[in-house]
Amino acid sequence: MPPYVPGERPPAGTKIIKLYTNENPYPPSPAVGEAIRMFNTDDLRRYSDPFSKAFCKAAATVLGVPENCILAGNGSDDLLAMIVLACLAPERKVAYPAPTYVLYRTLAQMQDCRIVEVPFDDEYNLPVSGLIEADAAVVFIARPNSPSGTACGLDLIEQVAAGTDGLVVVDEAYVDFAEDSAIELIRKHENIILLRTLSKGYSLAGLRLGFAVGNPDVLATLNKVKDSYPVDALANVIGAAAIADQDYKNENARKVRLGRATVSRGLREMNFTLMDSQSNFVLARPADGKAHRLYQGLKDKGILVRYFKEARLDDKLRISIGTDEENAELLKALAGLVG
Amino acid sequence: MPPYVPGERPPAGTKIIKLYTNENPYPPSPAVGEAIRMFNTDDLRRYSDPFSKAFCKAAATVLGVPENCILAGNGSDDLLAMIVLACLAPERKVAYPAPTYVLYRTLAQMQDCRIVEVPFDDEYNLPVSGLIEADAAVVFIARPNSPSGTACGLDLIEQVAAGTDGLVVVDEAYVDFAEDSAIELIRKHENIILLRTLSKGYSLAGLRLGFAVGNPDVLATLNKVKDSYPVDALANVIGAAAIADQDYKNENARKVRLGRATVSRGLREMNFTLMDSQSNFVLARPADGKAHRLYQGLKDKGILVRYFKEARLDDKLRISIGTDEENAELLKALAGLVG
Repeated sequence: MPPYVPGERPPAGTKIIKLYTNENPYPPSPAVGEAIRMFNTDDLRRYSDPFSKAFCKAAATVLGVPENCILAGNGSDDLLAMIVLACLAPERKVAYPAPTYVLYRTLAQMQDCRIVEVPFDDEYNLPVSGLIEADAAVVFIARPNSPSGTACGLDLIEQVAAGTDGLVVVDEAYVDFAEDSAIELIRKHENIILLRTLSKGYSLAGLRLGFAVGNPDVLATLNKVKDSYPVDALANVIGAAAIADQDYKNENARKVRLGRATVSRGLREMNFTLMDSQSNFVLARPADGKAHRLYQGLKDKGILVRYFKEARLDDKLRISIGTDEENAELLKALAGLVG
Repeated sequence: MPPYVPGERPPAGTKIIKLYTNENPYPPSPAVGEAIRMFNTDDLRRYSDPFSKAFCKAAATVLGVPENCILAGNGSDDLLAMIVLACLAPERKVAYPAPTYVLYRTLAQMQDCRIVEVPFDDEYNLPVSGLIEADAAVVFIARPNSPSGTACGLDLIEQVAAGTDGLVVVDEAYVDFAEDSAIELIRKHENIILLRTLSKGYSLAGLRLGFAVGNPDVLATLNKVKDSYPVDALANVIGAAAIADQDYKNENARKVRLGRATVSRGLREMNFTLMDSQSNFVLARPADGKAHRLYQGLKDKGILVRYFKEARLDDKLRISIGTDEENAELLKALAGLVG
């Protein structure tokens, strides 16, 4: 089984524009710096809070849910691993629409799960009946989806949840750049949980902090396989400070959406085909479908974007939205390449 | 399956003496505070280094091993979970001497492994033949062991390694308080790896940083199940600073060993029975074996020690070594209780 391969990382010090791992182009909230400055180093001597209450309390307040509806982990990837492990049972399956976040497959393979990949159609509508017929213990739905950037209809998620007795996990890693969230669905369907992360909207990819939102009984099941102290003492207070600063996060998300509109328009003017993205990246197909040539051409100019060498994706590029300057450089470089 | 239950945590603000989770009584190195002050908050925007190179380089220098012999994780518990997952194969077993760190059992249960617990004798000598005959994929040996505090002979570990084709994991969480380490054995036996943590000797339990030391081929196998970014950006630089400050760590360990001698002597004067500990805690049996009464009596006085309600341990207390003042208060309180 091949290991999960994260996006490429150039050597430190190389001057490049990184538009390939969907990081936020803007720095974290000033409240993060303040939380670090106020942190009492001696507190690191003690084990961190096993349930990261400071963070969970702040997250619960922001989302308007009870604190016992939140479970934090060492990044949402940690929670994904917990879900696969906790729901593992002989002969049960993991299902998801494809193409999507590749870690779902990797984690299922690690646990020797049976995997059902149900293809999206070309408009990335959720393949409801295929996901239901999979009869899986866990259904993963990334919304917005990566690498397509699309957000499926909430009504379709409800149909899947109503049609399965498995757990439906709505991975909202990119929700801060989207028009809406599936959060209202957790009140109606006990088998839906959300995953959120501070990596994208809150500019804290380096902190490793994610959380699940949903039915406390489901979270209790995950808790059985939780690391004793998954979130460190610094991340607990930094995360609490960051999530409390919604204004800052929302303003950055607004700027990213403006950048997304600019990049999308520029790409279309160069005859790329792309769907409307609800994420901080776009998936775009050049007119001739020769995406790898563009990927390499951009790389030669110091601009790194994501290329997936697999069916349905190898004619496209996934491009993260950067600052205004980075977006302008990207479009300029592409203009030189598509001629 | 019951979840792993960490040591009790009193409500914040309660004035108590905590001698039950084997935390270091002294604060982390001043280099830790400096690393936090120097940290550029904007660096949190990017994903952390998947291989925590800054930390691994510092650890490799300190241990005198090549950098590719080090793999870092989100605490050594994270590495334990990776080991069980990576070595999982149908019908293969996990073996360890008992009683020992309870997480070995919990992790093996989570992965539906077959478990072979081989009893220690009353002197906590390593049950070599039982561990070999288990024919396990993984053998866990905590050295020093918890809760006994004892360190088995290195020659016995070598015998186990020579007698099995499984992986022998020497968990050295408490090695900084011991007389010696098993590190030389990794050069002689490719199937031995060590686990280390910054939680105990380096006073960084709240940081969540541990690492494996050993054969790069074995570490490559673990890497296949590694989280993409297990160590956050702050922990990477804080850990590097902490492990580089060996003088500070060694001086604190010296103070802890002095405290251990004082506590051990005091307990023996009150007719407790205990073996010589090589850890930052002692496992002590009161003359009448009524350990729970003492546990409760200490708790009533605001002193928390660890009581294990299980065979071979329920007549003893595990007591972490504190500051000189805490150790004195402990002995005074016990004197009042044993009469």
